[in-house]
Amino acid sequence: MNWLFAASVIVIIICCSFGTANGECADQDIGVVAEELVLNQHRLDSLNLLLFLFLLVLTILTIWLFKQHRFRFMHETGLAMIYGVIIGAVIWYTADTKEQTPKVHTDSMLCSDEVDPPDSIYLELQYPNESVFFVYDREEVIKNPDLNKTRTINNFGDRISFDPELFFNILLPPIIFHAGYSLKRRHFFRNLGSIMTFAFLGTCISCLTVGGIVYCFAVLVMGLEWFTAQDCFFFGALISATDPVTVLAVFHDLNVDVDMYILVFGESVLNDAVAIVLTNFCFPFRTVEDFGDEFSGLHFLRALGSFCGIFLGAFGIGSLMGCATALVTKFTHIRDFPLLETALFCIMSYMSYLLAEALQLTGIVAVLFCGVTQAHYTYNNLSDDSKKRTREVFELLNFLAESFIFSYMGLSMFNPANGTFNPGFIAAAFLGIILGRALNIYPLSFLLNIRRKTKIPWNFQHMLMFSGLRGAIAFGLAIRNTATDARQMTLTTTLIIVLVTVVVLGGLTTQMLTWLNIKVGVDYDEGATTSLHSAPGTITEQESRIRRRKEQAWVVKIWYDFDYKVLKPVLTRKGADLRETWPGWCLPITEYLTVEDDQLEEDSDTDFILEEQESSEAPVDGASGPNGTTKEGSTSGEENTADGDLGLGDHQLAVRGLNDPPPEAV
Amino acid sequence: MNWLFAASVIVIIICCSFGTANGECADQDIGVVAEELVLNQHRLDSLNLLLFLFLLVLTILTIWLFKQHRFRFMHETGLAMIYGVIIGAVIWYTADTKEQTPKVHTDSMLCSDEVDPPDSIYLELQYPNESVFFVYDREEVIKNPDLNKTRTINNFGDRISFDPELFFNILLPPIIFHAGYSLKRRHFFRNLGSIMTFAFLGTCISCLTVGGIVYCFAVLVMGLEWFTAQDCFFFGALISATDPVTVLAVFHDLNVDVDMYILVFGESVLNDAVAIVLTNFCFPFRTVEDFGDEFSGLHFLRALGSFCGIFLGAFGIGSLMGCATALVTKFTHIRDFPLLETALFCIMSYMSYLLAEALQLTGIVAVLFCGVTQAHYTYNNLSDDSKKRTREVFELLNFLAESFIFSYMGLSMFNPANGTFNPGFIAAAFLGIILGRALNIYPLSFLLNIRRKTKIPWNFQHMLMFSGLRGAIAFGLAIRNTATDARQMTLTTTLIIVLVTVVVLGGLTTQMLTWLNIKVGVDYDEGATTSLHSAPGTITEQESRIRRRKEQAWVVKIWYDFDYKVLKPVLTRKGADLRETWPGWCLPITEYLTVEDDQLEEDSDTDFILEEQESSEAPVDGASGPNGTTKEGSTSGEENTADGDLGLGDHQLAVRGLNDPPPEAV
Repeated sequence: MNWLFAASVIVIIICCSFGTANGECADQDIGVVAEELVLNQHRLDSLNLLLFLFLLVLTILTIWLFKQHRFRFMHETGLAMIYGVIIGAVIWYTADTKEQTPKVHTDSMLCSDEVDPPDSIYLELQYPNESVFFVYDREEVIKNPDLNKTRTINNFGDRISFDPELFFNILLPPIIFHAGYSLKRRHFFRNLGSIMTFAFLGTCISCLTVGGIVYCFAVLVMGLEWFTAQDCFFFGALISATDPVTVLAVFHDLNVDVDMYILVFGESVLNDAVAIVLTNFCFPFRTVEDFGDEFSGLHFLRALGSFCGIFLGAFGIGSLMGCATALVTKFTHIRDFPLLETALFCIMSYMSYLLAEALQLTGIVAVLFCGVTQAHYTYNNLSDDSKKRTREVFELLNFLAESFIFSYMGLSMFNPANGTFNPGFIAAAFLGIILGRALNIYPLSFLLNIRRKTKIPWNFQHMLMFSGLRGAIAFGLAIRNTATDARQMTLTTTLIIVLVTVVVLGGLTTQMLTWLNIKVGVDYDEGATTSLHSAPGTITEQESRIRRRKEQAWVVKIWYDFDYKVLKPVLTRKGADLRETWPGWCLPITEYLTVEDDQLEEDSDTDFILEEQESSEAPVDGASGPNGTTKEGSTSGEENTADGDLGLGDHQLAVRGLNDPPPEAV
Repeated sequence: MNWLFAASVIVIIICCSFGTANGECADQDIGVVAEELVLNQHRLDSLNLLLFLFLLVLTILTIWLFKQHRFRFMHETGLAMIYGVIIGAVIWYTADTKEQTPKVHTDSMLCSDEVDPPDSIYLELQYPNESVFFVYDREEVIKNPDLNKTRTINNFGDRISFDPELFFNILLPPIIFHAGYSLKRRHFFRNLGSIMTFAFLGTCISCLTVGGIVYCFAVLVMGLEWFTAQDCFFFGALISATDPVTVLAVFHDLNVDVDMYILVFGESVLNDAVAIVLTNFCFPFRTVEDFGDEFSGLHFLRALGSFCGIFLGAFGIGSLMGCATALVTKFTHIRDFPLLETALFCIMSYMSYLLAEALQLTGIVAVLFCGVTQAHYTYNNLSDDSKKRTREVFELLNFLAESFIFSYMGLSMFNPANGTFNPGFIAAAFLGIILGRALNIYPLSFLLNIRRKTKIPWNFQHMLMFSGLRGAIAFGLAIRNTATDARQMTLTTTLIIVLVTVVVLGGLTTQMLTWLNIKVGVDYDEGATTSLHSAPGTITEQESRIRRRKEQAWVVKIWYDFDYKVLKPVLTRKGADLRETWPGWCLPITEYLTVEDDQLEEDSDTDFILEEQESSEAPVDGASGPNGTTKEGSTSGEENTADGDLGLGDHQLAVRGLNDPPPEAV
């Protein structure tokens, strides 16, 4: 690894020395000044990006070494962060600095609806022979900047800036979409009740606990008066978004029980969305009294209603966009041009996120369910080429986006602009998140176990407790607004919590699985049917299946019928034959909706082989363990050519390795 | 198509109505004000992106219809631009507007090395109970803004802004890399002399011609005094970057002669870089006299030297980065983790661009030759999965980036901020580019034909003349700096030239091929060997091959030997066996450098089949015609398993469909 570090030092030196030369306005013509500003900016941007890419290369090479030596104590995200911290420290403590006193332009305006802060202002610099106007665009708002203090500007470091818009609009959507697209849908929906309980109720509990504890410590014990109740609960909300990507990677490598996996995964995806919505809910309240007022009767119900509205709206947008893509890919022959098809697929999925955000709903939920819908319906209509390409592209984007975010978090750790390091507050925050997580997992598991047929055992509960890592979303929410001192302290604290949980908890995951005696190397098949049963040994599989068939909730049955008889055949070329299942008078419609799948019918054998190949390479359920045996698949005939599965029928499950348990187990 | 337009109108209305609600500062707490600003900004950014995505969806669906009906008069770039113009017009003429007088903060500074314009300034707004500071960051420089005029701000339209950094750092690199990665290297290098003549000499000719004509018209005839000689030659330089993507797509669809294709393609890729460098060269000179002074003797030589330095430096960076990637992929087993491998490949390729830009060389040349090197060496070391994935990812990125850029160009056509529409100037510019193109192609073709063994016939020259479409690079250079009125007029004119050439010339390409009697549907094989010969009929292929073997330049022979005996075996697992070709005393080194290719040796048959499959799907020479027959391939044994080809030997050419002519034909 020596050469890696040698190279890194060289790159940093280059970066720093280049960073020093910026911003000089030469004694020249104005056109040249303008041009030089543009070119300098471009060069610095290039250097910035170069630094990130260099960190990513370091991370990739190191992680490859780790993977090769089966060293599981470090995930790429943790590693990216550690490299970021090291290089960030070097930059912040070595690069040239310059002093600059901030320029203030005061304007005595009273705020009203008519007077906005202008979008841009001009600064006129009078050069010997002419005046030059520099345009300044509004970026952010600050409450109490120390205007008289001369700021020390790190020539290179200060340029490593990160627009939160980049995070929310560019880096986040592919990560979440990938989660939805590669979701083990059957297991997810089977555990949906528990997942939603943890995600919705649990996150609220965690938010209130963390907010409460932090409030007690910060305001009451430490006397930080500028840290308002609003700030406390804002912090509570953002820090409740868990991101156990490291834990999930270990689960995946070791083939941990699928229900364990899906509980951790499902909770983490949904609670991101809950946390984002909760942070927006904090704003109307400044003091504890405000909160008290709000949570009385009608107000509370109204908040709950808008909460549900936001979620359902986003869910609707995501699903509809998925269905729209399915319809387009079904009724056009765009599959003849896989490049266009893939591009359309990516763009429409991305649109679901942006549309939800533009409508002030939560894009994260929209794009998650868009991914689920795309996998369940659209995936079946895609050409083989696009099937592979969409999976691979999103896998790559997910990897790059995640590594980039964690690198950035590491780099910004030493950025003095990021605020206030307060050990007492950090300690309180850690106490808060541990307690909040405990009050989330254990009581809710107890409640869930009353109703659940397959209990959540103690060791699973401990593992869920342990999986409360923090990551990208918490950081994104924290850096979005650093106007006040309180927000800056929030950002610093969040960064430290992310670093500690990702590195320490992430590194201990394998050990933890051993300590908690959680079964690893679970066969997909077996794991799915028996591992959650308290006494699986005595009943045969056949019996257990019959038992579950009886236990089946009517909602699930209706949904299954609806999906198989209506949605699948309308949106894809598979599922029931509409001309048979729909009443006779619908014939004109059903004729129109039924598109003969020439390709599949011509050479279904080839297709079968292709699908089998695919599932052995990189199954769409990206995080799946080894493929199950296909004993059912081999008897249930041609329809088994695996298409998307919601776990809704023998028809869909065979080849993908999800053949057991039967569909009723959803 | 009706529903498409209906949908588009709805989306625009949504966008516009949302756009109106921005920027209001409510009568509330400062934390809330800050938060609302952030959220509003986010919502507007989302809407903006949504609009672009919507345009892309429209374009993709329409282009699919066109492709299905074999309607070749419209390429996706032209279509994207037309849709952009339509929707841009709707937005600019329907969306709400508000009035805003610019705020000016005057500072009497004399410019010196110590005083820079500050990076950011604060605006203090005094609200009833507290002061709020808005931070403004420096964005650009303007010479003579009309400060007293109240600006009419289009609430939505003004937000559709485009950071030139986004263009140069994000959108451009994948396009150029894709060009290099999918380059028909053998044909490219065989015609390298002609391509470089057109690209270097030709672009300079074009730049001077356009600059001169524009100067005569604008300054001397029309009396636009603010349009300096510098601006004229800047315009000449940027407008000399051709971008015949539409023409190339038609060439590809119709399998036009490969040499014709590579001449158009090669010139367009290299002249982009030349144009970028030339624009930077214009800056020290303001007046015609300055130019006169500069181009006298020593100065001229110095300029030429720095010109060459920039190109060679960038070429070196690109190639070295490619070789570095080849070494990493050869000596590590990162191929066992295709995701990491692909990520590393993408990142290191991107680094070549950024490194060159950061060193103030030209990134476009670096990333182009990085692509070539990656295809020639690294590609051989990649796992099969990564081979496919890298090709597919860059194909997709190229498509998306190109469509995005052209959509944006269309959208910004009606943006009043983009400057000054001056019909006289536009007419002069058109005259200039036609004359400049003619003075580039015809005289240089005449000169080249003196030395060329295979002449460039008249109809090819006309086609080269016709292929002078303008596109993304010209636009990117024009929008990079719009500080002065002259630059704004440059931008408007460039936009119009791009629109006209892309739509009109692009649409006429098929017709033009017929008129000029250029052979289409050329068999790869035949096209490569005979089409440029004036009398191919009488000599047999064997004879022609022998003849060419004799004609072979010694430079090419040395390069071929060096590539086969040193570079290939050092950088990849193919080529000559180092232990045999290198002297005995090198044994320790050669042993170390020789990595046994376990995978290839174990199942070379499988590999052979895979490669053949690949070449039938999407050959790495992305724009290739039908695959040639593999008659030579079948006799020259195992080495034929196609790897990258520089056209350097029977060994490499067989399966990829590049089997003839033999290697000496480079």
